[in-house]
Amino acid sequence: MNKKGLAVLMRTKVRPSISPPFPNTFHKMKTSPRESAPISPPSTPSDSERDFTQVRDWMHSAISMNKAEILDAALDEFSEGYVCLSHESRRELLLALGQDYDLHRAQVRELMKQYLDLQLPSDKAENSGNEEEGSLSAFYRIERNLRHALKPMYEVLFERLNTHPGGLKFLSDMRADIISILADENVASLRALDSFLKEKLVTWLSPANLELHNITWDDPASLLEKIVAYEAVHPISNLIDLKRRLGVGRRCFGYFHPAIPGEPLIFIEVALMKDVAQTIQEVLWDDPPALECDASCALFYSISSTQPGLSGINLGKFLIKRVIDVVKKDLPNISSFATLSPIPGYMQWLLSKLASSERSTPTFRENLLNPDEERAILDASGELNIGKSGMEVLWNLLASKDYEWANSMNLTSVLRAPLMRLCVRYLVHEKKRGKALDSVANFHLQNGAMVGRLNWMADRSEKGLKQSGGIMVNYIYRLENIEENAQSYICGGHIQTSSDAIFSFEDDQQDRKD
Amino acid sequence: MNKKGLAVLMRTKVRPSISPPFPNTFHKMKTSPRESAPISPPSTPSDSERDFTQVRDWMHSAISMNKAEILDAALDEFSEGYVCLSHESRRELLLALGQDYDLHRAQVRELMKQYLDLQLPSDKAENSGNEEEGSLSAFYRIERNLRHALKPMYEVLFERLNTHPGGLKFLSDMRADIISILADENVASLRALDSFLKEKLVTWLSPANLELHNITWDDPASLLEKIVAYEAVHPISNLIDLKRRLGVGRRCFGYFHPAIPGEPLIFIEVALMKDVAQTIQEVLWDDPPALECDASCALFYSISSTQPGLSGINLGKFLIKRVIDVVKKDLPNISSFATLSPIPGYMQWLLSKLASSERSTPTFRENLLNPDEERAILDASGELNIGKSGMEVLWNLLASKDYEWANSMNLTSVLRAPLMRLCVRYLVHEKKRGKALDSVANFHLQNGAMVGRLNWMADRSEKGLKQSGGIMVNYIYRLENIEENAQSYICGGHIQTSSDAIFSFEDDQQDRKD
Repeated sequence: MNKKGLAVLMRTKVRPSISPPFPNTFHKMKTSPRESAPISPPSTPSDSERDFTQVRDWMHSAISMNKAEILDAALDEFSEGYVCLSHESRRELLLALGQDYDLHRAQVRELMKQYLDLQLPSDKAENSGNEEEGSLSAFYRIERNLRHALKPMYEVLFERLNTHPGGLKFLSDMRADIISILADENVASLRALDSFLKEKLVTWLSPANLELHNITWDDPASLLEKIVAYEAVHPISNLIDLKRRLGVGRRCFGYFHPAIPGEPLIFIEVALMKDVAQTIQEVLWDDPPALECDASCALFYSISSTQPGLSGINLGKFLIKRVIDVVKKDLPNISSFATLSPIPGYMQWLLSKLASSERSTPTFRENLLNPDEERAILDASGELNIGKSGMEVLWNLLASKDYEWANSMNLTSVLRAPLMRLCVRYLVHEKKRGKALDSVANFHLQNGAMVGRLNWMADRSEKGLKQSGGIMVNYIYRLENIEENAQSYICGGHIQTSSDAIFSFEDDQQDRKD
Repeated sequence: MNKKGLAVLMRTKVRPSISPPFPNTFHKMKTSPRESAPISPPSTPSDSERDFTQVRDWMHSAISMNKAEILDAALDEFSEGYVCLSHESRRELLLALGQDYDLHRAQVRELMKQYLDLQLPSDKAENSGNEEEGSLSAFYRIERNLRHALKPMYEVLFERLNTHPGGLKFLSDMRADIISILADENVASLRALDSFLKEKLVTWLSPANLELHNITWDDPASLLEKIVAYEAVHPISNLIDLKRRLGVGRRCFGYFHPAIPGEPLIFIEVALMKDVAQTIQEVLWDDPPALECDASCALFYSISSTQPGLSGINLGKFLIKRVIDVVKKDLPNISSFATLSPIPGYMQWLLSKLASSERSTPTFRENLLNPDEERAILDASGELNIGKSGMEVLWNLLASKDYEWANSMNLTSVLRAPLMRLCVRYLVHEKKRGKALDSVANFHLQNGAMVGRLNWMADRSEKGLKQSGGIMVNYIYRLENIEENAQSYICGGHIQTSSDAIFSFEDDQQDRKD
């Protein structure tokens, strides 16, 4: 699983007003039976000091105790105490967990020395008799012991919390804290703790343990409230909006874990449409939706992860595959599966590219604009820009906070060609370590999608203009190619494009020029 | 978890007529969607040869492939092909899996050498600054790589099967085969495979993933049929017997895994009684049962594991604890929780002890009988035994196949004292590697029970007389001591006895002598 995918997706998508890592976990973590007990956050430093010591002691008990009743109490005390700690105290506690409950390096080294002293049997054993078997059993024994010795002591805490009521959710919230600390400072022991916890979570959240649920208007309000709160791509404005997204011609599917009831870990919103949608307007607001029997396209217009602590764990891939299966069975006339997705990093990339090109010496300077495009831009921008280059003018237009260009017929028709062309370049050709620069692109590509059609002025909201100049893209999922595409992207960085779609814009341009 | 516990329990309990490891898995494994496809077992050696090669190729594909659709097909082909193989071909295939898909020892050694070259930071770091952190990150990196390198290649197959429909059940059946092969020959690579698979199963079957279900007469016949088939302690003779066990005054609880629907992994039968039962007769057949409102005791009279492939994975402990919790909430007047259990190894132990004592030279000879007991036995056994010792006579009585002694008032009253006394010794004092000799005793003791009252002539069935001379024992579960008892038994071999119960028999004897 690619770490970048959902991690970035979630960082950019989950609205900070709803779940900032720290203040929020304070409320969200209260999943234990003692929900109604009053909790007063530490007020004075000395209180805080005492609390910290207490919570650290509970943590120690939770790791070292063996008696079930007391252990359950210790786990409760620890998790309840933890959420009352300040950011700083949590940081200190997590550092202590990573450092004081690490593995026994001396023991590991001792086992390694024993192992290296063993005679390695030849790979192609000619006598695979008892003697061979006997010498191998020493290898197996030490390998097994090493597997255990290489587990840090804090694994016990994770394992115990996982089987404790509310513990899985607590671990996910705790990991959100760890990720937030690591964003500020790179502590090796904490990074090791994070990586270990992540692997544990991957095991526990295997698709075999997750349940797909079709969320409808008949679901409890407490669940629908979560959908409103966590919807990160296209905020739900009111009850009518929500009801529409769960009504005729629409679907909403969530992945649930039995230990975290009443709250999906990730959910996806689907619109059943006659054709692949070109603007978010027609998906969210155009009325009435197509008849379901006429629909030939299932459009994924929003996918939201709800747990920042599951960052880097790609649940979306399995969700999308399961949803395609379910929709295909339910509505056999649906033949295409696509997204209508934002391109969150495009404008940022383009602006910095324009700026750096402008600053370069003429020899190394790359003109991002064709001569035709440059001329058109200079013509349209009027007298103010006399003496400036096309790129300079473009930068000024795009960087202006009021996005005035988007309201000018003249400017939009001039900017369409270069912005669409450069967007193809950004999505398909610009890479970092073999992966697409754009986080959402990377997410869908590693899931096995292809880059499809680019849609001009598909999202005219302020966020849409700011992120991508209003452009949105359809990623296409073809069930028969999903694994092949995913593999060739992940291993070789190859990005598949759906030729009929992505170049239709270029043909379109061609037509306009003719 | 103690390997001996359920392993032995299951070997002795699951009736071979119902689930012999090989012929049975043939039927049981057919859980894939292609259930109705005809399967013809290999008929001629050349067919078998071809089948084996095919299945081995599918196994290879299932491990090395990456494309989802083909992978699913390969997993289906492999698991369906596997169940068609003969015992011998399965053995060969499992050996190949263990040997050809082992870990890369050269890579492991390389990482170890790198690791041992690192400078171990002092345990009490005086400068825990950036330098320290930097040197540690090298440790963390290699430790992480080693954790991965120490995973055998066959882990991929296990992981993939676990998330594949029917795969968890298949893995459990496959492990039953492995256990059965290991019982005949001790192959180091296969033992390592078994131990690795067992650890995987322990993770997947963690109590958090299991569901407790109260099985009643309203459950589907297909589930109740399984209960009849798997009941291993007191076979269910007919529908009336089954209905009674699920009716008033009785409970039956099963542990289910979502991936193995319609079939409990383990189930327990409970009788609600006025007092702790002394004979299995009153539990199974006495009519009518006590009113539930009058009951003060929940008696566990049968616990059966259904999957031989989960041998050594102690699900019983969690089941018993959960059931005690549920019953306590449901019926607050229930104050004691106990079993009425067989003592499957007692007679075998006693007969071999009598035989070896008889053979010993007089100096080392231990007379297992008190003078009073010996005199009484010789008196009661008549003229035929003139010149023989008490132990010789006792051996002859107990070893006779028709258990005639049990029908003689005279003999049973004479044998009661020595058989009960020696049974206490067998259960509480005789140990092997610090554990109770008796498999059922070991199971309940490691779960945290105490040895309670011994009950004379509690099971007069042929099996009861053969295994334990008709004696049964109540193991007592006191929720407040469960973890303490379990810990002190597992770590120190200490066996708790419930003083009011176990010595009541000895007091009783005392009374009789007075």
